[in-house]
Amino acid sequence: MEKFFSVGDVDNLSQIVKEALSEKASPNANEALGKHKMMGLVFLNPSLRTRLSTQKAAMNLGMNVMVMNMDKDGWALETRDGVVMNGTTVEHIREAAAVMGEYCDILGLRCFPGLKDAEEDYSEDLFNKFLKFCNTPVVSLESATRHPLQSLTDLITVIENSDYTFDEAKQQYIPNGKKPKVVLTWAPHVKALPQAVPNSFSEWMCEAQKQGLVDFVIAQPEGYELNEDFTSGATLVYNQEDAFKDADFIYVKNWSSYKDYGKILPVEGEWMPTLESLKITNDAKVMHCLPVRRDLELGSDILDSEKSLVVKEAGNRVWAAQVVIKRILENK
Amino acid sequence: MEKFFSVGDVDNLSQIVKEALSEKASPNANEALGKHKMMGLVFLNPSLRTRLSTQKAAMNLGMNVMVMNMDKDGWALETRDGVVMNGTTVEHIREAAAVMGEYCDILGLRCFPGLKDAEEDYSEDLFNKFLKFCNTPVVSLESATRHPLQSLTDLITVIENSDYTFDEAKQQYIPNGKKPKVVLTWAPHVKALPQAVPNSFSEWMCEAQKQGLVDFVIAQPEGYELNEDFTSGATLVYNQEDAFKDADFIYVKNWSSYKDYGKILPVEGEWMPTLESLKITNDAKVMHCLPVRRDLELGSDILDSEKSLVVKEAGNRVWAAQVVIKRILENK
Amino acid sequence: MEKFFSVGDVDNLSQIVKEALSEKASPNANEALGKHKMMGLVFLNPSLRTRLSTQKAAMNLGMNVMVMNMDKDGWALETRDGVVMNGTTVEHIREAAAVMGEYCDILGLRCFPGLKDAEEDYSEDLFNKFLKFCNTPVVSLESATRHPLQSLTDLITVIENSDYTFDEAKQQYIPNGKKPKVVLTWAPHVKALPQAVPNSFSEWMCEAQKQGLVDFVIAQPEGYELNEDFTSGATLVYNQEDAFKDADFIYVKNWSSYKDYGKILPVEGEWMPTLESLKITNDAKVMHCLPVRRDLELGSDILDSEKSLVVKEAGNRVWAAQVVIKRILENK
Repeated sequence: MEKFFSVGDVDNLSQIVKEALSEKASPNANEALGKHKMMGLVFLNPSLRTRLSTQKAAMNLGMNVMVMNMDKDGWALETRDGVVMNGTTVEHIREAAAVMGEYCDILGLRCFPGLKDAEEDYSEDLFNKFLKFCNTPVVSLESATRHPLQSLTDLITVIENSDYTFDEAKQQYIPNGKKPKVVLTWAPHVKALPQAVPNSFSEWMCEAQKQGLVDFVIAQPEGYELNEDFTSGATLVYNQEDAFKDADFIYVKNWSSYKDYGKILPVEGEWMPTLESLKITNDAKVMHCLPVRRDLELGSDILDSEKSLVVKEAGNRVWAAQVVIKRILENK
Repeated sequence: MEKFFSVGDVDNLSQIVKEALSEKASPNANEALGKHKMMGLVFLNPSLRTRLSTQKAAMNLGMNVMVMNMDKDGWALETRDGVVMNGTTVEHIREAAAVMGEYCDILGLRCFPGLKDAEEDYSEDLFNKFLKFCNTPVVSLESATRHPLQSLTDLITVIENSDYTFDEAKQQYIPNGKKPKVVLTWAPHVKALPQAVPNSFSEWMCEAQKQGLVDFVIAQPEGYELNEDFTSGATLVYNQEDAFKDADFIYVKNWSSYKDYGKILPVEGEWMPTLESLKITNDAKVMHCLPVRRDLELGSDILDSEKSLVVKEAGNRVWAAQVVIKRILENK
Repeated sequence: MEKFFSVGDVDNLSQIVKEALSEKASPNANEALGKHKMMGLVFLNPSLRTRLSTQKAAMNLGMNVMVMNMDKDGWALETRDGVVMNGTTVEHIREAAAVMGEYCDILGLRCFPGLKDAEEDYSEDLFNKFLKFCNTPVVSLESATRHPLQSLTDLITVIENSDYTFDEAKQQYIPNGKKPKVVLTWAPHVKALPQAVPNSFSEWMCEAQKQGLVDFVIAQPEGYELNEDFTSGATLVYNQEDAFKDADFIYVKNWSSYKDYGKILPVEGEWMPTLESLKITNDAKVMHCLPVRRDLELGSDILDSEKSLVVKEAGNRVWAAQVVIKRILENK
């Protein structure tokens, strides 16, 4: 693996989940792999879970870790070419990325979208330029349109909390009984949030559906449909209740509109899941990438119950990061 | 040891001091203890000495360390239950603490008081909730009402700089000659400071007095009396000169009023110790937790003399942290 | 080596460059040297390359590393003596430095000049006081008037990219053919920058010239002459074209005026190097300490060409730091 940016960087989803669970079972088994190697984590935006879990994963693999919080250092990067740099940007991404590549064997990069210009955000210009100029493998720690470590985490969590058998011949998880029904549902928020987490969750679950692992449904209000490039094969519904019927996993997340880009639209009806609204499910477990706004996005009655997987899910962030870093180290 | 929050978390003060001095003598003797373990240091408020000394202590014990500066990430935590989170707080302490507990084997937490509502501060709500929800041992790196790593440091420094014999049978330090007289004195400052350091110093010295290690006196102006829960057994005086007579250790510290909560009150007379005011002591050594405002809290003539222990005292922060982390690791 | 502040801290430049290139060839060969030792990096000003490269160098030598960003913690240091600290400074450098020295075996310090008072800046008061009070070896990570790790890096880069033979008997690099001609040229910028990098580059190249390694020329507009203490032996010219003739290395850098201290003066003519202006050189390589303002200080046509060494040069920052830390560790 030379980069980790989207579900397209993984072939067999069952295999990578199994490998991640094996890291979870023996966190330090591969600590020789990263010895004398440097992991650099570059944040253009704040991070809590992602930084801690990736840092821990790299350390478990024996790596040294350096963290760069570019946002807080006021280290504004120029990304355009052909610009006379007489303004506020202090360094061009061509030099900044190349230099970090000199110091690190693997780089992680977090860069959020501006949420003003869909075309610009969806071009993933910053991530792609960083990847191009740094000359070393890059792991996305969330980019403008995707959060792949979160999505891999989520897939691990779904499989870990369902009933599957791993078929060694096919190198694939086979559901014992019916395939889990996974629902991604939009939920309310007071701020306009990126589509990265739901886009990414959707592209991973669509692929998981293709590989026979789950059935996947997205519920959102009118106007909140995700970009179609990420939802191919998913069943889209506009009614949370329809989606929840017989569901095994409810993935709750707010996002701003893609169609009316970056906007918060007026929404009718109740979209915040509660224990009451879960009754129609197949005793579903509830997931969220965190941080979650209690009683705005998700009822605290769920979060404080056994139905919530959110803390275990956050814990699994380590194993998603670890399997990705491991694969990159092995390629080298 | 499952938590380190107050003097109540330690039985035998002599034993823990002896153990700390043994870590000081062989800093890396126990580095196998923390191998593959993660220490997380969570700061809701800034820190210099506490972060560095605790980080070093954890590394001496072979641990990996991750630091989270929540204040600088603008990661405002909600602590109240039953609140619709549609305001400025981005995450509830229930989730934040639980997730950090997933990533770390031991957590350190620093959280200052608001100094507006005594009842709220003295409930130690934030520390207690963090401890409850993180599901892993927690070390206080200073909370609203206490700074126990500082106080343990101070006890180590008093014993190290006095004449005691350790009685192996009783597992206790026995003074050779008269017990050291330790004085905590209020001193002036331009800002309203928490009572955490003096509260904590007082509760540790009161306990040390009970265990036959010291005699303990507190000198403060009228209105600056500490909360009585922390001063049981201490001799309170309102005159610095009376307190200094025959004193062996002078512990200098400013704090805001507890009675007129969080306020700076008008004070009569001179309260800043100088070489002149020390003449009445038994050639006393002078201590301060730092940072110290020179010539406002404490005369620079003292700080620049042999009488000052402040730098050695700060150095001892490492061994206080190390013995606490070591005991927590051993319990596991 | 007890400190690393200027070229005066190194005797034989050839030897230290050779030693650095040997660290580059085997980055982890000396990792036993720093075991159980702590490197503390103290930043009073922001840093990217310096922090990362020094952190990596220390880790390569087996050290633990702690970083302190004093600027961001609002930890304002008092440096004057005899001042009643009732203002905005929270700690005196006497205590702050001494305490950091308690926790660390080697300290690195970055402190920029104020650019208002030449005498104050050129006294290097802050660096000198820190060195005096911390009681442990100190490496400059750039001070008011010098950036010695950058300059050592630059010398390594010049020698690595030229044709020399190392004479073992003389312990010196001998040029195969003509000595490389190295040119430091002023270039435009929109901000008033310190003279630290050019001062330092100049004092190292003047010494390298004395030791028979290079010929050294400085080109600057009228009014931009550096302080003479740093340029002894250098050829000064006021015309970039004259300087570039037959040059082998062009070192590009902006700085504010020393004579009209800290000011940006009106400048006539073109001072930004481009591929066109390089034609007159001996196929010169181009260097810059970074960050560089593209098409303001330096043409992007150069930066994007094979003539640019800036990324390799930044990479060499690790080996400059590593050889310095190694020498300090060996002295202990």
